[in-house]
Amino acid sequence: MAPEKDAFEGVEWRIRVADGSSEVPVTDTGLARKVWVKTKDLFSCLGLKVWMFLKKAWEIGANDPRKVIHCFKVGLALTLVSLFYFMRPLYDGVGGNAMWALMTVVLVFEPNVGATLYKCLNRIFATFVAGFLALGVHWIASRSGDRFEPYVVGASVFLLASMATFSRFIPSVKSLFDYGAMVFILTFSFVVVSGYRVDKLFDFAHQRISTIFIGTSLCILVIILVCPIWCGQELHGLTVRNMDKLADSLNSCVTHYFTYINGEDDKRLQGYKCVLSSKASEDSMANFARWEPSHGRFNFRHPWKQYLKIGASMRSCAYCIEALNSCINKENKAAESIKKHLSTSCLKVSSSSSSAIRELAQSVKKMKSPTVHTCIGEMNRAVEELQNDLKSLSHLLDPSTTVENKEHETPFLKAIGSVPFMEIIPVVTLASVLIEIAVRTEALVGSVEELAKLADFVTNDDKSKKSEMKDKIVPDEEKPEGTMEALQRV
Amino acid sequence: MAPEKDAFEGVEWRIRVADGSSEVPVTDTGLARKVWVKTKDLFSCLGLKVWMFLKKAWEIGANDPRKVIHCFKVGLALTLVSLFYFMRPLYDGVGGNAMWALMTVVLVFEPNVGATLYKCLNRIFATFVAGFLALGVHWIASRSGDRFEPYVVGASVFLLASMATFSRFIPSVKSLFDYGAMVFILTFSFVVVSGYRVDKLFDFAHQRISTIFIGTSLCILVIILVCPIWCGQELHGLTVRNMDKLADSLNSCVTHYFTYINGEDDKRLQGYKCVLSSKASEDSMANFARWEPSHGRFNFRHPWKQYLKIGASMRSCAYCIEALNSCINKENKAAESIKKHLSTSCLKVSSSSSSAIRELAQSVKKMKSPTVHTCIGEMNRAVEELQNDLKSLSHLLDPSTTVENKEHETPFLKAIGSVPFMEIIPVVTLASVLIEIAVRTEALVGSVEELAKLADFVTNDDKSKKSEMKDKIVPDEEKPEGTMEALQRV
Repeated sequence: MAPEKDAFEGVEWRIRVADGSSEVPVTDTGLARKVWVKTKDLFSCLGLKVWMFLKKAWEIGANDPRKVIHCFKVGLALTLVSLFYFMRPLYDGVGGNAMWALMTVVLVFEPNVGATLYKCLNRIFATFVAGFLALGVHWIASRSGDRFEPYVVGASVFLLASMATFSRFIPSVKSLFDYGAMVFILTFSFVVVSGYRVDKLFDFAHQRISTIFIGTSLCILVIILVCPIWCGQELHGLTVRNMDKLADSLNSCVTHYFTYINGEDDKRLQGYKCVLSSKASEDSMANFARWEPSHGRFNFRHPWKQYLKIGASMRSCAYCIEALNSCINKENKAAESIKKHLSTSCLKVSSSSSSAIRELAQSVKKMKSPTVHTCIGEMNRAVEELQNDLKSLSHLLDPSTTVENKEHETPFLKAIGSVPFMEIIPVVTLASVLIEIAVRTEALVGSVEELAKLADFVTNDDKSKKSEMKDKIVPDEEKPEGTMEALQRV
Repeated sequence: MAPEKDAFEGVEWRIRVADGSSEVPVTDTGLARKVWVKTKDLFSCLGLKVWMFLKKAWEIGANDPRKVIHCFKVGLALTLVSLFYFMRPLYDGVGGNAMWALMTVVLVFEPNVGATLYKCLNRIFATFVAGFLALGVHWIASRSGDRFEPYVVGASVFLLASMATFSRFIPSVKSLFDYGAMVFILTFSFVVVSGYRVDKLFDFAHQRISTIFIGTSLCILVIILVCPIWCGQELHGLTVRNMDKLADSLNSCVTHYFTYINGEDDKRLQGYKCVLSSKASEDSMANFARWEPSHGRFNFRHPWKQYLKIGASMRSCAYCIEALNSCINKENKAAESIKKHLSTSCLKVSSSSSSAIRELAQSVKKMKSPTVHTCIGEMNRAVEELQNDLKSLSHLLDPSTTVENKEHETPFLKAIGSVPFMEIIPVVTLASVLIEIAVRTEALVGSVEELAKLADFVTNDDKSKKSEMKDKIVPDEEKPEGTMEALQRV
């Protein structure tokens, strides 16, 4: 605001125009200039905001082109359903009720196959049930005389809408039929209340059902045939990525502490935060994935729930990495001599457990049974080594035991003699958290092994025995995702 | 299944009938009996399942009667909107398009005020914009001749639907207008495509807008006037409850470790898990709360985002409590003597920091500026004491320093001489995590203080100065939640 003030105190303002010359702006009145400056500011500010917004939008599209494809898919589905308006025979075929098909497409179309199928099947099922129930209630209401009909209809709407709404609070109903309950309320109240004004109620209900069926079929066709995004595949990929991130941040966190390779890759260090924050998306993906038919390497009854258990195991590791990070950023620094003493074994533990996690990620990615026994063995040996190193600190506390070990500990333990205990604590805490991480890594191995068992991952024995299983483990890119087969099952 | 098998092997089955006598079941053919047993099993199994389901539903309702009230509210709103069908003048008034009002109620009615207002305002705004845009496009299309009209309409639907869908991926749009974008697509394609078949398109658009307006107004009236559930109040309550849970589990976790009061209250111990898992609900509540008008003790521009920061601080404490828990459940037990040595100061740190957190919860609950300086001072003193206790272990490592301190440490340090270092590690880790928790508690205090500043919480100075502020801190139960005032602002 300061320059503006100056302007009013007699400083001449010049505007540089396109050709490079500058001219004095119109200054006949203070007000005009004020308005001009304000308007210019406003527009440049607005222009900047719009520019930033467009840039942001471009980045989103460039980072994940599938989002752009999804948008075009929505456009395509809507344009296709518009044909029911544009083509006379189609329009007459649905008795001018094409709007339900249009509405279905807008309400049901989701970015991934699982969510779309969930909504489609819920919508069809709920429309059927509600439609028949509404016809029944209408029949009863119409038999109860003109005077009582509105009361019967009103009471039935009140009761069934309340009950259906309540069912949405019950977890088992919510996870399977949340959208269905809403469509049920909509269709039921719609058909039964319209019954009061519409004469041919059966035709009305029939048209609603058939147009909704047209809309959902179109959605399913478009979502599965045009660059499908499978929820299950996404969940699978997310799990693999999160494991890799976990391994990376564990490794770089400990390496960073002991070797001072600073600022190398803050993003890798913070990778565990993705693991901490992905619970909600894992839950919803696992919920939608079970609606998906067999696709790619996944069967219809792939154990998606096991992925949630793996996610929980990963998060329990991530909590420990959080604690590790806080050890590292602590104010009271650790003694160099102690750090040096424990660094080898600590680095061994972290590198072996992170390579175990990476191995797990690879096995999940390739859908092979995990072969992490060597990694885990190495990790356990490293943990033992670390515990021995910690124990060797112990001799300092108990002078009686040091006598017989004196010969091989002298160089280090003499040096350590002058270290204040407070400077040992951070390293000891770190080592102790690392041991805990090793324990939790084993739990993670357990949950991945369970997945391998439940999902019939290829074991090494299978591989050597059966050559026909080979095509099952061909990576995504080389094999079309079995969409036609998937479609036939819908 | 064992008894069934026995039956086939010649054991006679008797059925006890209502009057107390028992009779042999019809056993003319093995098949009939088989079918009878199977059917009975099926029905008893089904009956049990239905019974369990109903019991579960009853529990949900009994635990939170507001859910039941919400269901009746939905029923009420739908019954009210049905009046547009039952009353001739109303039905004719909206040109037989009462269905849009009905549909609006079903789609827009949410359990809390914030979400409902968000959807209502989005729906009205998007319908207006899309309606006008559609009329414009229709005008252009109708000028382009019969042959090109469907192409112009189709292209516009494709383009605008794609663009609106894409906008839903942009975070800033998503958080404010996600539902609006969907309604925009629906209304736009609906009006512009109908334009191809409907003659009086302006009337059509006008009716859609006015019925949607009726539906949303009715929803807003019912949601605010009948036992309103305010998202902001819920978020506020959740934050307070989570703080209490955090304090409880911190305290009981450490007490449990040092005093062996086992199995006392596993629920209290695990309270921190609620804090870990409440991020998603906090996010959505904060998002909806900003749509709510002034209600109760909250202004329209209450700093809801700050609650998210408080939530993040609480979670960072909860991660540490997770680490604490893992220390406690470790296999290698700590030495009793060391535990005893550190127990007093550890318990002091945990009790003082948990009482600081409880104090914070109280101050947020009562909307007073937090007065935790005494608690925090106490906590810091306890941390210092703990650090000194840890340092006193240090003398064992460095024999040269123990000489002058020998007199007051002898009883303990003599005992400790025979403790293996490995048995010290768990307690030292625990102490070190506790110190970290104290640091994070201070961060939590900081974020609550920021909330107090942003939301103009009553300070102690205010209280003594201004007596008219008194009514502002009357608890919920004693003051109606200002619904009328809130309604006027909508």
